[in-house]
Amino acid sequence: MAHAVDLKAVEEAAHRIRSLAFETPVIRNSYVDELVGKQVLFKCEIFQKGGAFKFRGACNAVLSLPQEQAESGVITHSSGNHAGALALAAKARTIPCTVITPQGTPRCKLDAIRGYNARVIECEPTMDAREATCAAEQQRSGATFVPPYNAVPIIAGQGTIALEFLRQEPLDAIVVPVSGGGMISGIAVAAKAIQPDIQIYAAEPVGNNNAADVKAAKERGQLVPMARPNTIADGLQGRLGDLTWPIVRDLVEGVITISDMDILAAMRICFERMKVVVEPSGATGLAAVMSPAFRCLRHKRVGVILCGGNVDLDVLWPLIKAKIPV
Amino acid sequence: MAHAVDLKAVEEAAHRIRSLAFETPVIRNSYVDELVGKQVLFKCEIFQKGGAFKFRGACNAVLSLPQEQAESGVITHSSGNHAGALALAAKARTIPCTVITPQGTPRCKLDAIRGYNARVIECEPTMDAREATCAAEQQRSGATFVPPYNAVPIIAGQGTIALEFLRQEPLDAIVVPVSGGGMISGIAVAAKAIQPDIQIYAAEPVGNNNAADVKAAKERGQLVPMARPNTIADGLQGRLGDLTWPIVRDLVEGVITISDMDILAAMRICFERMKVVVEPSGATGLAAVMSPAFRCLRHKRVGVILCGGNVDLDVLWPLIKAKIPV
Repeated sequence: MAHAVDLKAVEEAAHRIRSLAFETPVIRNSYVDELVGKQVLFKCEIFQKGGAFKFRGACNAVLSLPQEQAESGVITHSSGNHAGALALAAKARTIPCTVITPQGTPRCKLDAIRGYNARVIECEPTMDAREATCAAEQQRSGATFVPPYNAVPIIAGQGTIALEFLRQEPLDAIVVPVSGGGMISGIAVAAKAIQPDIQIYAAEPVGNNNAADVKAAKERGQLVPMARPNTIADGLQGRLGDLTWPIVRDLVEGVITISDMDILAAMRICFERMKVVVEPSGATGLAAVMSPAFRCLRHKRVGVILCGGNVDLDVLWPLIKAKIPV
Repeated sequence: MAHAVDLKAVEEAAHRIRSLAFETPVIRNSYVDELVGKQVLFKCEIFQKGGAFKFRGACNAVLSLPQEQAESGVITHSSGNHAGALALAAKARTIPCTVITPQGTPRCKLDAIRGYNARVIECEPTMDAREATCAAEQQRSGATFVPPYNAVPIIAGQGTIALEFLRQEPLDAIVVPVSGGGMISGIAVAAKAIQPDIQIYAAEPVGNNNAADVKAAKERGQLVPMARPNTIADGLQGRLGDLTWPIVRDLVEGVITISDMDILAAMRICFERMKVVVEPSGATGLAAVMSPAFRCLRHKRVGVILCGGNVDLDVLWPLIKAKIPV
């Protein structure tokens, strides 16, 4: 069955964004290799423009617009990395960008979005208010709505991670943090087309309400309506969509569920051992490969996406210190 | 006039350590480029084994020993990255390593040294006590003393940074943090042999006692006895030696002095913008390129060494937050 995105779409995205997105480096760490009992290769999307992989998809979406449509600008509602990425991509094409942000969005993320020249409109912190405000503003300005994950150019853009990664390192598995499934869908489509025997795993944070919609959907073979996870991984609170779910269903081998405690422990290793700054969602892939469930798998060379680094250390460092025994 | 190390020695070191040391990646950051008004390329020695460039020199020194001598082990006195690097290199060759550490050495560094199987002997925190304890232990065991910077295999090993860096990126200047001068000497010798018109700059922390011995030596054309700088850059409290000084004298274009406030500001940018964890000495090169003195230079593509990432965030994060206005 055909999926929304194929390797060709990902290759076209790579061509489209190559002068704007960074090719991110891969790093290794001996301590992690010993801990996991495998070679673990980390794809550093924390060094991507805007501090997260999101720039790839946003950039591909913005550059895909016909000139006339682009001139009316782009718009999204987001409190996170997608908003910053879209603002940055719009700035690169010198078109207007509007971001609807819920009240309570962290100052550092607002500062970044404004720093990229986007117009910020605050609204009530509910999904209804976000969608209503966005629709009204879209109607007024004629701007194109760019969703965060459930869209063809977004999935194709995130898939460029896999093209680079497999060119940089031989791998037999890739572990990808998942929420709405944009990144894992793009990576799975591209990686499996290039190397059919590669195995793709989702790392899914479940929060304190055990809201594992990807795991549940995989087990039942269909989307399962479920609350958003109440997790410190603020970047991973999306739900699978109608474009990403079929790809996750068909091309993802397994789902590893991750608690917030696991995420904090992995963050500590990132800071203290790997010398990288990651946000909670960025540490989720490391938490997955450190899990007993993953360590007993036969894989020898495992890729992990360090997907984002936009963290407020003032908030999270005390939490990391307090919760995790040394 | 011939220096202690030449390009051939650096190339031999690269050959010797290539199966053990990582080739470290180079990263960029758009925010820094705009701030500095140049393209700044960061060589990430924070991702080197042991979390600092020191592994290159220590590894070259350990692998250069004849087998019989190696079997008696290696020894050094250090509270810092050199000790960890030597322990790691000795572990790789499965020979004994002893480290004399002054009382008060940070727990995280002691843990790392012990984690690499080295024997740790604590002594009074004075240079006399360190040297006496080291000499006594050396006599007892027959171990080879490996100094931290003023030694041919160390300088040659650190020089391998330049071979990699110039292969990875075109550069017209490199900025290198300096204390004893091992790293800058190796880099200057190799880089200038490969590309004679490249310019090498030292970034020298002066602490609150304004102890800029490299700057003073360059100005007067001779070594100037001076107190060690009282600086938060605990990795940069060495003094130039008889092997490193002639290289610094002949091959280094300029010295940029850096205050502790500059270092803290650069650390904040590393954490918040670049998503890398650096120790104070690791941020010194960034502080230098951000200085008005450097920004007015004509260079277009500048390399900076992020030399080490072994920092106790519990201690330094509050300092970074408190001292630097947002």
